[in-house]
Amino acid sequence: MMRIDVLTLFPRMFEGPMGESIIGKAREKGLLEMNVSNFRDFSDNKHQTVDDYPYGGGAGMLLKVQPIYDNIKAIEQETPTTKKRVILLDPAGKPFNQAMAEEFSQEEHLVFICGHYEGYDERIRSLVTDEVSLGDYVLTGGELGAMVMIDATVRLLPDVLGNTISAQTDSHSTGLLEHPQYTRPASFNDMDVPAVLMNGNHKLIEEWQLKESLRRTYLRRPDMLETFALTDQMKKMLKEIEAEEK
Amino acid sequence: MMRIDVLTLFPRMFEGPMGESIIGKAREKGLLEMNVSNFRDFSDNKHQTVDDYPYGGGAGMLLKVQPIYDNIKAIEQETPTTKKRVILLDPAGKPFNQAMAEEFSQEEHLVFICGHYEGYDERIRSLVTDEVSLGDYVLTGGELGAMVMIDATVRLLPDVLGNTISAQTDSHSTGLLEHPQYTRPASFNDMDVPAVLMNGNHKLIEEWQLKESLRRTYLRRPDMLETFALTDQMKKMLKEIEAEEK
Repeated sequence: MMRIDVLTLFPRMFEGPMGESIIGKAREKGLLEMNVSNFRDFSDNKHQTVDDYPYGGGAGMLLKVQPIYDNIKAIEQETPTTKKRVILLDPAGKPFNQAMAEEFSQEEHLVFICGHYEGYDERIRSLVTDEVSLGDYVLTGGELGAMVMIDATVRLLPDVLGNTISAQTDSHSTGLLEHPQYTRPASFNDMDVPAVLMNGNHKLIEEWQLKESLRRTYLRRPDMLETFALTDQMKKMLKEIEAEEK
Repeated sequence: MMRIDVLTLFPRMFEGPMGESIIGKAREKGLLEMNVSNFRDFSDNKHQTVDDYPYGGGAGMLLKVQPIYDNIKAIEQETPTTKKRVILLDPAGKPFNQAMAEEFSQEEHLVFICGHYEGYDERIRSLVTDEVSLGDYVLTGGELGAMVMIDATVRLLPDVLGNTISAQTDSHSTGLLEHPQYTRPASFNDMDVPAVLMNGNHKLIEEWQLKESLRRTYLRRPDMLETFALTDQMKKMLKEIEAEEK
């Protein structure tokens, strides 16, 4: 069973997302133990402050090292034997991607540290194994980033996803974007399903799907094609697509 | 006031995150109206199904166009005069970034459509203005992605963030990563605050901060330097850093 700890000043943010959907199912199935703690509870200050002004001046406040240090120590005392991966959510961190989710899913114990509004005292970085950013955009806190990383990681754990779902093509797993897909009705507001998908010729259907998958990747994410090992059939299709899209 | 609608099969996921923190504050201040609707309620099928098998075969199920179409129509009837930006959360969409958050923050009405597990019937795309992906990783649904985009957008609305906070340096706004920062105590577990930050010489402090900001960007995100307009002082510092880090 994987264990995940989250350190945050806003534990209530995790209530909805981490109870519903795949995370909730993994917890019900006993595949995941998840604990959310408020590091304000670990402040050694009588006012329970967790932040202070930066040395050298500057706007804003910084999260102090002490409450987070003591919160981690408490987790270590509770789980002395687990190998821990301690992840700091930080805009200056390594951008999160699917390879990282796969790596995280192999670990036995993940600890996420979520800042909010403020920066971190630099010494907090000495307590962690990873500094990770969700992407090139600014969020008010690390909480949503931690939830995204937890979702991406937990769905990769064995037995979490049903067979049907895991068998589905994932855009970022195959290396190409998904081709267009259609379900009933055959016609909706004058928008019809392509005839090829209705005629039952599986060879033609597969060719159409591959070509449209290549077309979508070519049009939207040409960068994904640069590193993709194209077969001869794919190269031929791409030439056709280039001519068609001119 | 901005209005945001979210279409999802898991409305409860939004309860924690969208009530706490900056989103909750924006709603309390009357700067944001947010509605979460379950598009299952709009299914015209007596079993309230929202998905069906794909034409042409394939594993998994697809979300049908009808329930989402009718949910959007209901929102349009309720708000006939607002200019809407309708955003589909999709791994094949344009990667979300800070420029997109800034664009979204200028709109009066955002509508987010969140799929879950399954793919979309292609005709759903005809109902939207934008198809957006959170990043190159696979999530079980669009809900967390929508929350991230809402957070990144709402914090940019006028009067949502206090002055102190908005004045803070944001890594992805300035184009460089933040320099290391420290707060009290001056020494923690033998880790000391750099002396330069304690001596009160503001010129030296600023130089140190700029150089360490460049160093962190150079070491972690050299791609960010490629597009950055470096001053002569910065170029000189970068040469020193290159030599020091060899």
